[in-house]
Amino acid sequence: MTGPLIAVQVEDDLLPLWQSVFSQEMPGAHLLGFDGDVGGADAAVVWAPPPAALHDMPRLRFVMSRGAGVDGLVEGLPPDAVLLRMREPGIAARMAEFVVLSVLHLHRGWQSLHHRQTSGEWRGDMPSLPAAERRVGIMGLGALGTAAAERLAPFGFPLSGWSRSPKALPGIETYHGEAGLEGFLPRCDILICLLPLTPETQDLIDAELLAKLPAGAMLVNAGRGGHLVEPDLLAALESGHVAGAVLDVTRTEPLPAGHGFWQHPKITLTQHGAAVQGRDEEARAAACVLRAAFAGKDLPHRVEPGRGY
Amino acid sequence: MTGPLIAVQVEDDLLPLWQSVFSQEMPGAHLLGFDGDVGGADAAVVWAPPPAALHDMPRLRFVMSRGAGVDGLVEGLPPDAVLLRMREPGIAARMAEFVVLSVLHLHRGWQSLHHRQTSGEWRGDMPSLPAAERRVGIMGLGALGTAAAERLAPFGFPLSGWSRSPKALPGIETYHGEAGLEGFLPRCDILICLLPLTPETQDLIDAELLAKLPAGAMLVNAGRGGHLVEPDLLAALESGHVAGAVLDVTRTEPLPAGHGFWQHPKITLTQHGAAVQGRDEEARAAACVLRAAFAGKDLPHRVEPGRGY
Ligand SMILES: NC(=O)c1ccc[n+]([C@@H]2O[C@H](COP(=O)([O-])OP(=O)(O)OC[C@H]3O[C@@H](n4cnc5c(N)ncnc54)[C@H](OP(=O)(O)O)[C@@H]3O)[C@@H](O)[C@H]2O)c1
Ligand SMILES: NC(=O)c1ccc[n+]([C@@H]2O[C@H](COP(=O)([O-])OP(=O)(O)OC[C@H]3O[C@@H](n4cnc5c(N)ncnc54)[C@H](OP(=O)(O)O)[C@@H]3O)[C@@H](O)[C@H]2O)c1
Repeated sequence: MTGPLIAVQVEDDLLPLWQSVFSQEMPGAHLLGFDGDVGGADAAVVWAPPPAALHDMPRLRFVMSRGAGVDGLVEGLPPDAVLLRMREPGIAARMAEFVVLSVLHLHRGWQSLHHRQTSGEWRGDMPSLPAAERRVGIMGLGALGTAAAERLAPFGFPLSGWSRSPKALPGIETYHGEAGLEGFLPRCDILICLLPLTPETQDLIDAELLAKLPAGAMLVNAGRGGHLVEPDLLAALESGHVAGAVLDVTRTEPLPAGHGFWQHPKITLTQHGAAVQGRDEEARAAACVLRAAFAGKDLPHRVEPGRGY
Repeated sequence: MTGPLIAVQVEDDLLPLWQSVFSQEMPGAHLLGFDGDVGGADAAVVWAPPPAALHDMPRLRFVMSRGAGVDGLVEGLPPDAVLLRMREPGIAARMAEFVVLSVLHLHRGWQSLHHRQTSGEWRGDMPSLPAAERRVGIMGLGALGTAAAERLAPFGFPLSGWSRSPKALPGIETYHGEAGLEGFLPRCDILICLLPLTPETQDLIDAELLAKLPAGAMLVNAGRGGHLVEPDLLAALESGHVAGAVLDVTRTEPLPAGHGFWQHPKITLTQHGAAVQGRDEEARAAACVLRAAFAGKDLPHRVEPGRGY
């Protein structure tokens, strides 16, 4: 065998597609599913792998996430392996679409549209708030947060953003660090979460944070389910302090039957579909990143070890 | 009385607001509701007035529509009156929001979201089509159509447009006139109607036109209900040739009880709310236009007589 052995954790019916894409994009690489003989794998492509899986591959040089997030991967990583993530224009473009769609959906009152329609109630004459009077705040100003901000800006929503380190971005009022939250939250009529899940951001959106939003604020969570303390959101919706939410991610996925989110009229669930690439696109993106990684190139896809994202 | 007498067809409870706004913006003007003594009115501000109403005001110099459309006004107009319409940034901005929201809603499959959520069905892993593979076509490239195109462009949807006279617009493949429809329609995966209602555009969206769209095309009608032959849309949805529609306007408004649109899972009804200005904004806009009109200024708000829009 000439090229590297790559273990890919993909659905069985997708393996032939990945093999064919890799044979074009990274000739010489040998692809096997996780149930194959992958103990000697040089790289692994994974999505929420069983914790022990990577320990049985001692030669791993690269571990690549099939998603933009790497939560859950940082801990189980073999010490010498480099963690890579998806950071593709196709993901950022879809996420920006999703964020604009979610923001406009909330901004224009479409959350009650289905009920109005099926109950046959004609409301007529409904002025909508000018975008200039709806302040939108984005937590997370990375690849996805900045792409979303760029698509939102032309509508005229006053934008602000929050990140770990200070940032200067045209047209966005920026805040950073825990102290920055105090100034940031009160100006978020719509709050968007596009953070990575790390020990610092876990459970960030709780009762205390929600209470600092303006009355009637709305939430879009497109980060991870672990960012949101779900009972706290339900309580804030119940009290009316939060007026609605679009949730792409939930604590447990698939969302368990009977969970309070399913039938909630003020929650729109999008079932982790915010930014799913086409199957072909995904395989091609993984192949390009791994080819460059094995060629020793420095990549924006590398996750910084100590930081967790 | 020094200034002009203006008859305004507004809801009774809005009249004081209009009077107060006009007293600031157009001092001297005297405002009365349509049920007042308005036989000597110099101008009228109207929305779908009863046909005879304007005949009883022989001195009218200006008739202003409360909407961007003037359908139904052209016929009843006193011969010497100049017809004016709303052409405000606030309307164009809201319409652009509405169009982007509707296009993304259809593009991202949100029409079935509510059903999926209430039936507790988790779909998972749903790749979405890249915007570059969803062609969007706009019928009507006036104030509203061009504003909508400008907001859609950054997403990367291939755009085309159709108007009466030839137009060159950056980033939009343009077509015009009846002959232009042949080239235009087959490249509309999502067709948006932002036309004025005139004898030429009445009933334009019929079985024949829908048949020329690509299979699986979707429709956004934000023009007028009279543009669409409603049974033809229902048939096209039934056959699957058309996959979904967002309709802001309908033949009869409010939509009659029992109409086939109410409970249709592939129709989203937005109840003529696409571009409703705030009450204050609307009164202020009308006052500014009439002030300029009485001052003899030439206005983009003037409707060209022979053309009907
Ligand atoms: N719902 C979905 O389908 C979906 C799809 C893809 C991704 N995602 C989620 O979106 C996340 C972001 O992706 P990305 O590509 O934009 O990541 P990224 O480029 O790494 O950006 C992350 C951003 O979050 C900020 N951040 C991290 N920790 C923080 C903290 N403790 N306090 C404040 N800000 C903090 C970072 O601040 P600095 O700029 O200062 O580093 C950065 O601005 C992913 O990690 C994933 O969880 C969800
Ligand atoms: N749903 C709502 O809430 C709502 C709100 C506001 C307006 N509207 C509707 O939107 C319409 C458009 O408003 P607007 O301000 O954009 O109007 P506009 O500036 O007058 O533009 C009208 C456009 O339609 C084109 N057009 C007219 N007749 C045509 C024909 N026979 N064939 C092909 N193209 C034709 C015109 O072509 P040319 O450029 O060649 O003249 C022009 O591009 C209004 O008339 C109204 O019906 C709906």
